[in-house]
Amino acid sequence: MKNTQIVLKNYVNGVLKESDMILNASATINLKLPEGGSNNAVLVKNLYLSCDPYMRTRMTKLEDSYFEAFAPGSPIAGYGVAKVLDSRHPKFKKGDLVWGVTGWEEYSIISPPKILFKIQHTDMPLSYYTGILGMPGMAAYVGFYEICAPKIGECVFVSAAAGAVGQLIGQFAKLSGCYVVGSASTKEKVDLLKNKLGFDEAFNYMEEQDMNEALKRYFPNGIDIYFDNVGGKMLEAVLPNMRTNGRISACGMISQYNNLKLQAEVACNLFLMVTKSLNMQGFMVNDYFHMYPKFMEIIMPLIKQGKICYIEDFAEGLENAPAALVGLFSGKNVGKQLVVVARE
Amino acid sequence: MKNTQIVLKNYVNGVLKESDMILNASATINLKLPEGGSNNAVLVKNLYLSCDPYMRTRMTKLEDSYFEAFAPGSPIAGYGVAKVLDSRHPKFKKGDLVWGVTGWEEYSIISPPKILFKIQHTDMPLSYYTGILGMPGMAAYVGFYEICAPKIGECVFVSAAAGAVGQLIGQFAKLSGCYVVGSASTKEKVDLLKNKLGFDEAFNYMEEQDMNEALKRYFPNGIDIYFDNVGGKMLEAVLPNMRTNGRISACGMISQYNNLKLQAEVACNLFLMVTKSLNMQGFMVNDYFHMYPKFMEIIMPLIKQGKICYIEDFAEGLENAPAALVGLFSGKNVGKQLVVVARE
Repeated sequence: MKNTQIVLKNYVNGVLKESDMILNASATINLKLPEGGSNNAVLVKNLYLSCDPYMRTRMTKLEDSYFEAFAPGSPIAGYGVAKVLDSRHPKFKKGDLVWGVTGWEEYSIISPPKILFKIQHTDMPLSYYTGILGMPGMAAYVGFYEICAPKIGECVFVSAAAGAVGQLIGQFAKLSGCYVVGSASTKEKVDLLKNKLGFDEAFNYMEEQDMNEALKRYFPNGIDIYFDNVGGKMLEAVLPNMRTNGRISACGMISQYNNLKLQAEVACNLFLMVTKSLNMQGFMVNDYFHMYPKFMEIIMPLIKQGKICYIEDFAEGLENAPAALVGLFSGKNVGKQLVVVARE
Repeated sequence: MKNTQIVLKNYVNGVLKESDMILNASATINLKLPEGGSNNAVLVKNLYLSCDPYMRTRMTKLEDSYFEAFAPGSPIAGYGVAKVLDSRHPKFKKGDLVWGVTGWEEYSIISPPKILFKIQHTDMPLSYYTGILGMPGMAAYVGFYEICAPKIGECVFVSAAAGAVGQLIGQFAKLSGCYVVGSASTKEKVDLLKNKLGFDEAFNYMEEQDMNEALKRYFPNGIDIYFDNVGGKMLEAVLPNMRTNGRISACGMISQYNNLKLQAEVACNLFLMVTKSLNMQGFMVNDYFHMYPKFMEIIMPLIKQGKICYIEDFAEGLENAPAALVGLFSGKNVGKQLVVVARE
């Protein structure tokens, strides 16, 4: 069977481009697991693939990196939703729907599966398992509730607020009785944040001359919680606006991923961590997947009761996957960016 | 009575120089509080003045600074030990020995005293109340025990390890069953750390080509706790050497104080906060002075039993105070730098 793949051409230096990835239309795969292979292998048909900023960090060979670099010449990997076609793994059987880490290709042999969950609730859009019901949902839940421990009335700022995680932070903040403001890169997204996602305020950071002043406008009394998805210059602008004893949840730093090897721009006012008694806590969502069942118990009723919604941005077909991934870094996506490989 | 003062000439830009401070030998003072003045005023004779890195940040006019800037033309202020000559304050009476914030001059009217403690234990060297029994002692205690919550066997790194705070971190770490390494700027200090203060290891960071490599040498399995007194390039070198879930106590960032207004050099790899799930907690010791009595109960027996020692570096006379303060920023001091104004 033919098995179209998205392959990493070479390690990437600087800004990610579509041409750093190649569509390989000549690969093939046997749709049955080979005899005598691994006892834990699962063969899946990929349905939805998730475009996540952290994937850029796997395209550069870094010393001491948490993430293993992708291998040039091989398909890249990421979170996705898939259907099991064949399995030697005791937890998965043919016909199961699953979400977790898979390949950017039509079919993948996952052997052994490291992060793979059986989808229990098939009454939800399957694509949600790349977003609100998958890794970004868990990141929002953990990063906001576990890391920030928000209290009613607190002032919350979230960057990349219309993204996969940010849109949930705003909604969680409102459910927790907080005042929440989000930043995004277009007027369309700002309107979404205010009119559909329930943010108290939102602004287009591309249109602000002075980010520090913009934050002062929306937070005259300062920020209690900053949910940081971007790092860099935005973090630098946030620090002077933090209140004493404020908390920063360091979820991601998308502004840095295209130049992790370089002397990246960064908060040059980190001394404010001291004088404002700030706490910054980084976290990796993989360390919290044991909480996934608890998360599902909380999030499912919220979705069903219409108390939380989720915006997705679909790219159709593997051939459009590289552009979708690259688009994350210029904010082209509105909501969770994903790729439809097949609908069933 | 004449009252020699050290006066700030002008707001300071860039590197602090002795000439930024002026010795004013023509000021006078009446050694009796004026009738009808503040009901809370205390008139003191200054004995020992503390040279602390944070004082540099009060010499530049910064927006949103935690510390109020000194007034050009007026004596600078800082922690010190003094004797009460006259008092309208109910908590202090003539003859009391006190420590807290006072002026860089022979005599000061403190009105009202904001941070001023009556010295209960006069059987200790009075100079200790600028160091181990004063603000730096509290900073070490709070920053290590309250912020880092060290566990037996953990690996601790402290920068500026032979300074007022650093020398205590090493000794606290050993008392807590930790492995501790310190960095300092001369061979003499490194020897002190290893031979007198009980650090497991110490190194001269001025002699290291590659700080990252130096840290790898001393921490092959990584750092659990970094007690940061310097910030900047050292923090940048530490981040890749932190273990997952490591903690950073942000006590001070002396490397940054001479250029807080500039685009200071900083950790350009802050993304490691995310991938290593690190926690960085800044703190201001003033927020913890309610714990001073508890601290004294703990530290006094340790000193008396010889389980903890303290190295001081004395400058004699107010006329030598500017050089002593400036010397902090090139690491001239060995141990706690203080100025002797008068011995009683």
